Amino acid sequence: MNWALVLDLLGTFFFALSGSLLAAQRGYDIIGSLLLGSLTGLGGGVIRDLIIGRPPVAFDQPIHLVAPVAAAVLVYFVAAGVERHSRPLLIFDAGGLALFCTTGTATAMNAGMNPVAAALLGVTTGVGGGLLRDVVANRDPQLFNPSDLYAVPAFLGAALTAALWYSPLPTPLSTFIAAALVFVFRVLSLHFRWRIPHARAGAQESSP
Amino acid sequence: MNWALVLDLLGTFFFALSGSLLAAQRGYDIIGSLLLGSLTGLGGGVIRDLIIGRPPVAFDQPIHLVAPVAAAVLVYFVAAGVERHSRPLLIFDAGGLALFCTTGTATAMNAGMNPVAAALLGVTTGVGGGLLRDVVANRDPQLFNPSDLYAVPAFLGAALTAALWYSPLPTPLSTFIAAALVFVFRVLSLHFRWRIPHARAGAQESSP
Amino acid sequence: MNWALVLDLLGTFFFALSGSLLAAQRGYDIIGSLLLGSLTGLGGGVIRDLIIGRPPVAFDQPIHLVAPVAAAVLVYFVAAGVERHSRPLLIFDAGGLALFCTTGTATAMNAGMNPVAAALLGVTTGVGGGLLRDVVANRDPQLFNPSDLYAVPAFLGAALTAALWYSPLPTPLSTFIAAALVFVFRVLSLHFRWRIPHARAGAQESSP
Repeated sequence: MNWALVLDLLGTFFFALSGSLLAAQRGYDIIGSLLLGSLTGLGGGVIRDLIIGRPPVAFDQPIHLVAPVAAAVLVYFVAAGVERHSRPLLIFDAGGLALFCTTGTATAMNAGMNPVAAALLGVTTGVGGGLLRDVVANRDPQLFNPSDLYAVPAFLGAALTAALWYSPLPTPLSTFIAAALVFVFRVLSLHFRWRIPHARAGAQESSP
Repeated sequence: MNWALVLDLLGTFFFALSGSLLAAQRGYDIIGSLLLGSLTGLGGGVIRDLIIGRPPVAFDQPIHLVAPVAAAVLVYFVAAGVERHSRPLLIFDAGGLALFCTTGTATAMNAGMNPVAAALLGVTTGVGGGLLRDVVANRDPQLFNPSDLYAVPAFLGAALTAALWYSPLPTPLSTFIAAALVFVFRVLSLHFRWRIPHARAGAQESSP
Repeated sequence: MNWALVLDLLGTFFFALSGSLLAAQRGYDIIGSLLLGSLTGLGGGVIRDLIIGRPPVAFDQPIHLVAPVAAAVLVYFVAAGVERHSRPLLIFDAGGLALFCTTGTATAMNAGMNPVAAALLGVTTGVGGGLLRDVVANRDPQLFNPSDLYAVPAFLGAALTAALWYSPLPTPLSTFIAAALVFVFRVLSLHFRWRIPHARAGAQESSP
């Protein structure tokens, strides 16, 4: 069984769900839902593959398209009671973030990148799809929300995956462990409203 | 005569016109008009070529730069009576969409992609330039407007081009036929305000 | 000494400063500052390298990551008295623009591109990072501000670098001269509020 593909499809599905849910909240039509879900689910991986210099898997292996189609269909039928709540969008986004920052790093290590670049590419893969989603939906990116340490678990997960690469653990297992830790960390940070310091020392409140 | 180049230049010119017209409506200066036109006209093709893995033709064949320059000059001299109307922008955008979703698919088939990926890349090429235009001009993308089935003709045109690839018709002819059908479909959908279902079942009105 | 690397790191640092300063003005946290600085400082170069078809140096040579880290740290400690003024952001942005439009052109000429494409890629490199910065921070791009001829010095600097390529001057020297001229031109244009004609003839005032 191809674990890398399974984890990739799962991450794509989670991110696509977050995109299609946002589309439902915004009143987009079903094709807009499919497009925003696809961009969110596949965008980070396309950027990752372009930087690595290989054909983007979203185009090379059409099975990746199943995930955004399934997400758009699911949102179409179950979103009626959901679209006024922000929590499901955040949870699915956390799942996609956890999987993509770790599998992105592992993919880059596999491609022979140095560990620092691999971790950076993992972060890019993890936050890229959600950033594209927010940018094209014309809203302030969740990535830069100062009351939400969105990128911190991505950095930790990417660094952990790069470090575990040198451990005796098989890569699918270490990637899965890192992804699970990222997901738990992310959900806890949302629940307990963890924060980190502002971009400048002494800033006690965010600008209007 | 190189039909692929002619169709590509024509699509670039139409999209560049839509970008330069938007620039005129926004009060940008002439260089902003040239840049927004170039991004709209050449952006979809650059994304297409990066995903295929070949040098972007916009840079490899500088003749492509003629189209946005001509569009910016034309808008400079004739836009005075035009810039308060949204119709010309929509028509030129429809022309660019029709040509790029079909030529993008044909280019991908030529590069050896499977038909599903080729059609997806055709859609990406068709909607990419206009999406970039709307994102950098900081407005809600036309692509996601729920009262406008913008992406549907692109999907149909890309699928038709991929299907006609296996017909005995020569590629320039089948591409041109598909593009003409997409353009007619797009203009009719604008005129008769055709719509498709919302992203979630039961949504009767769009969100505020 | 590798002058190309020094100029590239300096441009990355200037652009990253502009990104981190904007993050401080917006009330982002320190990781948001690092991310926005990295995107601004490294984004133009990544686009340049993807179009040339080589591994992006930001990932291939991790020393490039030093610049955005230094910028975020600097902004953290010194931004307290700065973040309400727009002038430092404009000056640092001008430094990044001057260096990237010239080094981007020189890099493309080195890679064997024709002079027109090389100059276009220089402009893309120069304005790309700042455009990404403004787009993801969800503000109207400085690039399209009709009361600021932002892109004009980039065009002049890229064209001058491509022309000087055929002079007997060594490339580092000619690139540095072109960059210095672009910087001076840019700062003068800001100080004296130089403008160029609007996107359409007869437009005497910008749209609201």
